[in-house]
Amino acid sequence: MSTKESNLRVLLASRPEGEPTPENFRVVEEPPPVPGPGEVLVRARFLSLDPYMRGRMSAAKSYAKSVEIGEVMEGATVGHVVASNHPAFAPGDEVMGGPGGYGGWQRFCAVPGDALRKADTSEVSLSAYLGTFGMPGLTAWVGIEDIGRPKAGETVVVSAASGAVGQIVGQIAKARGAKVVGIAGGKAKCDFVVGELGFDACLDHREPLEPQLDAACPEGVDVYWENVGGHVQKAVFPRFRDFGRMVMCGMIAQYNTAPGADTSGAEPGPNLGACVRKRLRIEGFIVFDRGWPRYGRFREELLAMRRDGKLTWKEDVVDGLAAAPRAFIGLLRGENFGKLVVRVD
Amino acid sequence: MSTKESNLRVLLASRPEGEPTPENFRVVEEPPPVPGPGEVLVRARFLSLDPYMRGRMSAAKSYAKSVEIGEVMEGATVGHVVASNHPAFAPGDEVMGGPGGYGGWQRFCAVPGDALRKADTSEVSLSAYLGTFGMPGLTAWVGIEDIGRPKAGETVVVSAASGAVGQIVGQIAKARGAKVVGIAGGKAKCDFVVGELGFDACLDHREPLEPQLDAACPEGVDVYWENVGGHVQKAVFPRFRDFGRMVMCGMIAQYNTAPGADTSGAEPGPNLGACVRKRLRIEGFIVFDRGWPRYGRFREELLAMRRDGKLTWKEDVVDGLAAAPRAFIGLLRGENFGKLVVRVD
Repeated sequence: MSTKESNLRVLLASRPEGEPTPENFRVVEEPPPVPGPGEVLVRARFLSLDPYMRGRMSAAKSYAKSVEIGEVMEGATVGHVVASNHPAFAPGDEVMGGPGGYGGWQRFCAVPGDALRKADTSEVSLSAYLGTFGMPGLTAWVGIEDIGRPKAGETVVVSAASGAVGQIVGQIAKARGAKVVGIAGGKAKCDFVVGELGFDACLDHREPLEPQLDAACPEGVDVYWENVGGHVQKAVFPRFRDFGRMVMCGMIAQYNTAPGADTSGAEPGPNLGACVRKRLRIEGFIVFDRGWPRYGRFREELLAMRRDGKLTWKEDVVDGLAAAPRAFIGLLRGENFGKLVVRVD
Repeated sequence: MSTKESNLRVLLASRPEGEPTPENFRVVEEPPPVPGPGEVLVRARFLSLDPYMRGRMSAAKSYAKSVEIGEVMEGATVGHVVASNHPAFAPGDEVMGGPGGYGGWQRFCAVPGDALRKADTSEVSLSAYLGTFGMPGLTAWVGIEDIGRPKAGETVVVSAASGAVGQIVGQIAKARGAKVVGIAGGKAKCDFVVGELGFDACLDHREPLEPQLDAACPEGVDVYWENVGGHVQKAVFPRFRDFGRMVMCGMIAQYNTAPGADTSGAEPGPNLGACVRKRLRIEGFIVFDRGWPRYGRFREELLAMRRDGKLTWKEDVVDGLAAAPRAFIGLLRGENFGKLVVRVD
């Protein structure tokens, strides 16, 4: 028990116009919260940084409500229980927060015990519950399971292939028998995606993509996992085969310019005539809608892959909560390499 | 039996650049074909004219192969049997052609009996087997059944609402409890769509659409049936509600500019960021892939609607096969009013 420590917190100080700056955040120290009935006081050990947070910084309407100015930034954490008013948790337990149990960008949080899950670290590290075994991994699994549904022998193209979601998308698709082609920024990431993750190929989006795609996918693309938008989408879209599926997970390339639901002002997309002629399906999803109730099945499949040597991942660990704002700004620029997490202390 | 008549035929004379002209067609008279083993000689009474035919005139790759120069134009017909080498058909039978049994733009055709279906005209006129009870109606039913899936109380917007497919889409959606808003060109069509077809509203795309959409769909759009593309798509797309579905049936506005599968040169479409945030699904389909094996169920549902007074339709009948080219050119301009058919003689 260490509630004598202060609660270091990162608040939203102002709303960004375009790319966020460090001035949009304010780091404060406050007393730790006191857990109410049914609540658990958790000390965070790792904080997850994810692209969706850019939307929460904006006042524009989106699928979830914005963080208000002066409020703590939203984010998932893993940590250990300091004090518990919930029968399922005791001090020292390692826990992750599900929906309604996100700790936020702060050292201490008091959240309903019902929104927490014990994090079994016998096979998986605690921080992985923010990535591969957390929301990003669940996102990958749900999108493949419900929308992409690659058949053996089909070609799956994954953008942001070395990122938190992309790494797992490709490995699940590969385990299911697909040919998997990643897209990432720069040689180091591409080498990792092929050498460590075992994708069949990885293309560098800093070089002209069209000829690389033609070489890597001469048969065309059956499933495209969209994490980025922009010029990557433009290059992949015309290469769909008949009955292709485009899993719309994110379009990070425009999060700083069109952070809300109204993307009418954003740059136009592909002509949709091909959807008819090629019978394409373009489908967006948000893991919070449908992922969590299926966490058990997801975890089982990923653990089995792990035991079979078919699942690995890379984390990009940043030290100290105060470093979170700059790391998040870098995430939106693609500067992270692997799942970005903050070691809180 | 009247095979002493010549076989009037409309051939593809040349491939159009942009909008087709009468010179792209050639009308010839030849002797009628002689039916081979298992084949049936049919004399057409009505020929269907449909937007998909524009794609067949083009050499560009699409979902079906092009009509070759000098070949008869592709098209569905209904007519009566003149001679039969198939046990299921006898002279005088009224028949419609399913896939592989399309008669083409000609007076006589010899087609496999297995690709024909008897047309029961006790409740439905023969020509309706080219429209409401033919491919266009089946298209409407399959797209609603598989992709649009409107729930009671949802708002369904149908473009080309007075056309062969649109008329039926709206009436099926209405029968299933949706609020249905059509879009058509001009007051006469809009009046028909509301007054005769029973849509809740119909908007004129020749007037600014955005304010009309805001007034007719203040709650937003759950299902958009896309027949046209262009400025209609641009107006509807930003108005999707969460979990909206866009049924990609056709984009006639660009058939003269991008008739093949490669629409990369066509004007851009909507930014797809909204697909993630609103969890939209955009899905294209071709009735030939999946409609015909379910013809029986489709027919049953539509006959039931008909008996309940919930199904009507309008045909635009043009006289004489030689008038087909000009009528088809008009179809691509939206000049027809209702399902366009040619009375062969």
